[in-house]
Amino acid sequence: MSGNGKPVGVAVLGLGNVGSEVVRIIEDSADDLAARIGAPLVLRGIGVRRVAADRGVPIELLTDNIEELVSREDVDIVVELMGPVEPARKAILSALEHGKSVVTANKALLSISTGELAQAAETANVDLYFEAAVAGAIPVIRPLTQSLAGDTVQRVAGIVNGTTNYILSEMASTGADYAAALADASALGYAEADPTADVEGYDAAAKAAILASIAFHTRVTADDVYREGITHITPDDFESARALGCTIKLLAICERVKVDGGQQRVSARVYPALVPLSHPLAAVNGAFNAVVVEAEAAGRLMFYGQGAGGAPTASAVTGDLVMAARNRVLGSRGPRESKYAQLPVIPISLASTRYYVSMHVADEPGVLSSVAAEFAKREVSIAEVRQEGVVDQGGQRVGARVVVVTHRATDGALSETVAALEDLDVVQAVASVLRLEGTNP
Amino acid sequence: MSGNGKPVGVAVLGLGNVGSEVVRIIEDSADDLAARIGAPLVLRGIGVRRVAADRGVPIELLTDNIEELVSREDVDIVVELMGPVEPARKAILSALEHGKSVVTANKALLSISTGELAQAAETANVDLYFEAAVAGAIPVIRPLTQSLAGDTVQRVAGIVNGTTNYILSEMASTGADYAAALADASALGYAEADPTADVEGYDAAAKAAILASIAFHTRVTADDVYREGITHITPDDFESARALGCTIKLLAICERVKVDGGQQRVSARVYPALVPLSHPLAAVNGAFNAVVVEAEAAGRLMFYGQGAGGAPTASAVTGDLVMAARNRVLGSRGPRESKYAQLPVIPISLASTRYYVSMHVADEPGVLSSVAAEFAKREVSIAEVRQEGVVDQGGQRVGARVVVVTHRATDGALSETVAALEDLDVVQAVASVLRLEGTNP
Repeated sequence: MSGNGKPVGVAVLGLGNVGSEVVRIIEDSADDLAARIGAPLVLRGIGVRRVAADRGVPIELLTDNIEELVSREDVDIVVELMGPVEPARKAILSALEHGKSVVTANKALLSISTGELAQAAETANVDLYFEAAVAGAIPVIRPLTQSLAGDTVQRVAGIVNGTTNYILSEMASTGADYAAALADASALGYAEADPTADVEGYDAAAKAAILASIAFHTRVTADDVYREGITHITPDDFESARALGCTIKLLAICERVKVDGGQQRVSARVYPALVPLSHPLAAVNGAFNAVVVEAEAAGRLMFYGQGAGGAPTASAVTGDLVMAARNRVLGSRGPRESKYAQLPVIPISLASTRYYVSMHVADEPGVLSSVAAEFAKREVSIAEVRQEGVVDQGGQRVGARVVVVTHRATDGALSETVAALEDLDVVQAVASVLRLEGTNP
Repeated sequence: MSGNGKPVGVAVLGLGNVGSEVVRIIEDSADDLAARIGAPLVLRGIGVRRVAADRGVPIELLTDNIEELVSREDVDIVVELMGPVEPARKAILSALEHGKSVVTANKALLSISTGELAQAAETANVDLYFEAAVAGAIPVIRPLTQSLAGDTVQRVAGIVNGTTNYILSEMASTGADYAAALADASALGYAEADPTADVEGYDAAAKAAILASIAFHTRVTADDVYREGITHITPDDFESARALGCTIKLLAICERVKVDGGQQRVSARVYPALVPLSHPLAAVNGAFNAVVVEAEAAGRLMFYGQGAGGAPTASAVTGDLVMAARNRVLGSRGPRESKYAQLPVIPISLASTRYYVSMHVADEPGVLSSVAAEFAKREVSIAEVRQEGVVDQGGQRVGARVVVVTHRATDGALSETVAALEDLDVVQAVASVLRLEGTNP
C-alpha cells in the first residue's frame, strides 16, 4: 500500500494537552501515517474557543466556528478533544450527521450518550472510535470489542483513575491522610483545581459504564453505576488493610452476575476496596492505570500502562485516527456498537462481594457475641474477627475496636447489618465499611 | 444488528486441544456469536488426519480431504489449527486462493511465510488474522497493529514461551538444575516429548519475528532473529543473578535502533537474560506470558495473561473468527499487512545491551587488572566487578571467580572480549555470559 491516495482531511476540536500532542504527531509523523493509511492525513482546521496567535500552530488553522469546521466538505474525520459534555455532544452529532467519522476521548459524554452517538454513527455509516476514553494509552476498548469477541467476559476490574490512584498510593506509602495526599497530588499537577470528578469517583464511574457496555454487549450509562469516592479513607483504614495483607485501591468493577433463576445481569460499581497485596492490581501505583479482564476461555488478562497525560492519550487517539482513515481509504468500517444482550443492571444492594467492617465498641465481655449475632441474623458469614484494645495518649485503655471480615454477601444484607450494628448499645460507632475484592470467597 | 443474516460458513482444520475448544465455543455460544456477527456461524466441516467416530464431534463433520474442505462453496472462513508448517501452508494458500478469509495460530508458518500469505490474502481481498500466534489469549497483535497505529514503537520485549518460563521459574524458586526442572515440566504437561522448539528458543524466535514485523512495519522472518536457548543455564547463574538483584528470563526482544548516520534498523533476538526483580517481567512466573511495549507517545505498556493452552488460545482464535465473520457480513475487511518501512535487520554483533560475564580465574594478584584491561581495549565499559574465592568441599580455597557486569556495549565487542579473556593465562574458563536487560545503561 502506498501513501499517495486521495488525502484524508482531519479536523481537531480542542487544543489542550491532548489536542496539541495529536496535532504534533500528525505533523511529525506525516510520512509514517501516510504509509500506514495509504493516503496523507491533512489537518484542515482546529476548533478552539479563542483564536489567537500564541497557540503554537499556524493561526489560519484555528477557528472558533466549530459547526462550520465539522461540516466542511474536505473534512473526513473529526477528532473531538474539547470536553466537557457540551458543546462536545453537539459537535460530534453534527459531524456524524455530516458523514464524518469521529474519534473522541470524551468519557463523560460517552457514558451518558453512547446510544445516541452510536445510533448517529450507524445512520451515517461511519466510524465512532473512543479507545482513549478509558485508561489513556492502554488498549482496552479494542481488546474487549475485538480480541475477546468470541469469548464470554465475566469480569472487568480496573484502576482507571490516575488522580485517585496517586492519592491512595501516597497514603499507603507515607501514612499521609487524605487531605495531605490530595494537596501533594495538586502540587504535582495530578489533581485538578476542583478534584470532585476524580475523588468522588465520577470519572471512574463513566469509564465503568463504557467498559460494562462493551464487555457485556449492553448499554450501561453512568447513572447505572454505583459510585463511592475516596474522601472518607483514613490512615486507620490503611493500617487495617496492612494487617489483613491488603492495600486500598479505587476500583471500577463490571461483572456478569447470575440472579435467582439463572438469568444474567450486570453489576457496575466504583468504590475504594481492600485488595490483597498478592493481586496484580495491588502493585499498580502512582498515576498508572491497569485493567484486569476475566473471560471464560481466555482466563485472566491484565493491561497496564499510563492512563492519562497528553502524550499517552494522544497515542490512543492517533491510533483510532489512523484506523478511521484506513477505513475511509479502503471503503471499510470498523466494529459497530454491540448491544444485543441488553442485560439489566442490578442495584448495588443485589451485588455481592466481601466486606471489612471496623467499629468502636464498649470494652466489656459479650460484645463480640452481640456483634457476631447481627451478622448471623442476616446470613452474612464471618471469615475473620479481630478485637483490640484502644489506648489513649497516656497508654490508658479507653475502649476496644472490632474488625470483621466477611465471606461473600450481598450489599443489601451488609447494609442492614451495619444499620443494626449502629443501633447496638455496645457499638459506639461503625468507623469504616470497605469492600474486599480480588480474593476467593 | 440482528443475528439472522446469511450464515457464515466455517471450516476448522485440526482437532487438537485448540481445535476442539474452538468447535465447542462455536456450538455453545452460537446465539451470542450470531448476535455479535449479525449472522449465524455454521461449522461446515473439520479437517483431520484420521476420520474416526471417537473425536467428540459428529463424524459427518470430519474429513481428511483438506483441499476439498477449504474450497467448498459454502465455506467463508478457514480456521487453521493443524500445524506444523506443512501441510498448513498449502491449506492456507489454497483457502486464500479460493477467496476464504483465514484465521491461524501457526507461528512457525507465519514467521517464515508472512509475505507469501499476506500477498495471497491481498490478492484475494480477504482477511488473514493471527492473534493467537503470539502469546495465546493475550491481545498483542491487535494492539500493535491498531491501537498503536498512530504511535512509534521503540521496543517490544516479552516472555512469549510458557514452557521455558515454567522451567526458569522452577529453577529460580527451587534451585533445581535445568534437567530436573525440564523433567518436572514434562511431567506436568508443560513440555513436549521433544522440547527442542521451546528450550532452544525456536518458538520464541518465531514469535519475535511476527512481533518485529508488525511493530516496525517491516517483514522480519525467523531467520533474521538471533536465537539462544536456555539449556546452558545453571543454578550458579541464578545465584549470581540473585546477588545482582535479578532473575533470569527467556526474552524475545524487538528493537528499533539507530545506526551511525541516524538510519533506523531493527534488532530481533531471543535469549535468556538477567532481568532486575523490580522489572514487571521479573514477576511473570510459571506458564504465564507477558509482553512489554514501549512506544514514543504511549510510554510503557504491559500485556499479561495465559500464553498457551487449549481454552486461552481458542479465545484468541474465536475473537479473530468473529471479526472475520463480521467483515464478511458487512462487506468490510480488517487491517492489511503493513510493511512499508522495510527496515534492515541488523546482525546480533551490532545489537547493544549490557552483559554479565562470569569466569574462573587463577587465585593470584593482578588478575582483576588483566581481566579489566581486555574489556577496556574493546571499549566495553565495566559497571560492576565482584571477585570471590572458590572453595572445595573441605573448605580449602582452590581458586577464584570473577563476575563482571558491563555498561551497554555491542554484542560484537563483547564477543571479542570474551574470546580474548579465554586466551588469557590467568583465566581458566569463562563459565557464563548472559545479557542484562531492563535496566538503564
